Amino acid sequence: MRILGIDPGSVTTGWGVVISDRASGTLVHVAHGTLRPPRAASLPARLAHIHRGLSEMIERLEPELAAIERVFLARNPHSALVLGQARGAAMAVLGAAGLEVEEVAAREVKQSLVGSGAADKTQIQRAVADSLKLPSPPPQDAADALAVAICAAHRGRLAKLGVRRRSTRRSRSTAWVVRRAK
Amino acid sequence: MRILGIDPGSVTTGWGVVISDRASGTLVHVAHGTLRPPRAASLPARLAHIHRGLSEMIERLEPELAAIERVFLARNPHSALVLGQARGAAMAVLGAAGLEVEEVAAREVKQSLVGSGAADKTQIQRAVADSLKLPSPPPQDAADALAVAICAAHRGRLAKLGVRRRSTRRSRSTAWVVRRAK
Repeated sequence: MRILGIDPGSVTTGWGVVISDRASGTLVHVAHGTLRPPRAASLPARLAHIHRGLSEMIERLEPELAAIERVFLARNPHSALVLGQARGAAMAVLGAAGLEVEEVAAREVKQSLVGSGAADKTQIQRAVADSLKLPSPPPQDAADALAVAICAAHRGRLAKLGVRRRSTRRSRSTAWVVRRAK
Repeated sequence: MRILGIDPGSVTTGWGVVISDRASGTLVHVAHGTLRPPRAASLPARLAHIHRGLSEMIERLEPELAAIERVFLARNPHSALVLGQARGAAMAVLGAAGLEVEEVAAREVKQSLVGSGAADKTQIQRAVADSLKLPSPPPQDAADALAVAICAAHRGRLAKLGVRRRSTRRSRSTAWVVRRAK
């Protein structure tokens, strides 16, 4: 299963593709990268840059599943609009490619990779490099995208093992609960 | 000058194309329409629907300028995110087509069409039908898109006449100020 993770942003959009072998539980790194539209370009030109870059990558790498971070509550309406625009341009590509898109919560990604929902960016970069046996940590936005893909891979593997997730009341994070097969 | 106005939304995206003859000051209606992605479809599929629909229309109608409503302050971060996503998918098309995009404030559109920044939706629909000599008012989202295109056409004509716009301190609306040529 080839899983694409994306981390859309108006300045930088990260992406990463991993292969998850659900039977053996192994994860293999395929590729990652970042898209940085020229800062001086107009907003429509920057969004077109993101759309075109992701389209070309998907055509080349042919992922079978996509994963993106869920947005909980942006800090303010302006930043939500700016993020939404980049996200919209990116998600239109995933939709056009007919990809199923899983949304994963930021805390779930951190929990999945580092074992703590409060992990910082550097910890995520290191954990991504470890999980995928990369010689060095990928750049931050690409690492975030790979982290989302890895989290989706874990989720899929747990689902295969009969594990369900359950929301906890205390926090917005997602907890994994192992259920015995009856 | 063929001007495309768009009114992106997650449920309905309106568009409209007018020809503005800046020399004579006449406006001619070319076409308008609405895109309504299936409600049951996933968010990426709905955004891809908007992207594809606008792409096809632009290829067919070949507008030379695009106009979109400026977002001032969305009511809350969630609605800003949702609007941003539809806007991002739509603007990526405009950028890919190499179109220059003018942002016009809602109040400016209303002022331009009805002469009052507080005009309601029905007044806009009627004013659009009058301006373009349509037999009946277009559906609301298409009317809003045509109104944005008409406003951009007026702006261009005023600019040609040496008229500049100036922000007023009292409101966020945009006022037009006629300057004498020296």
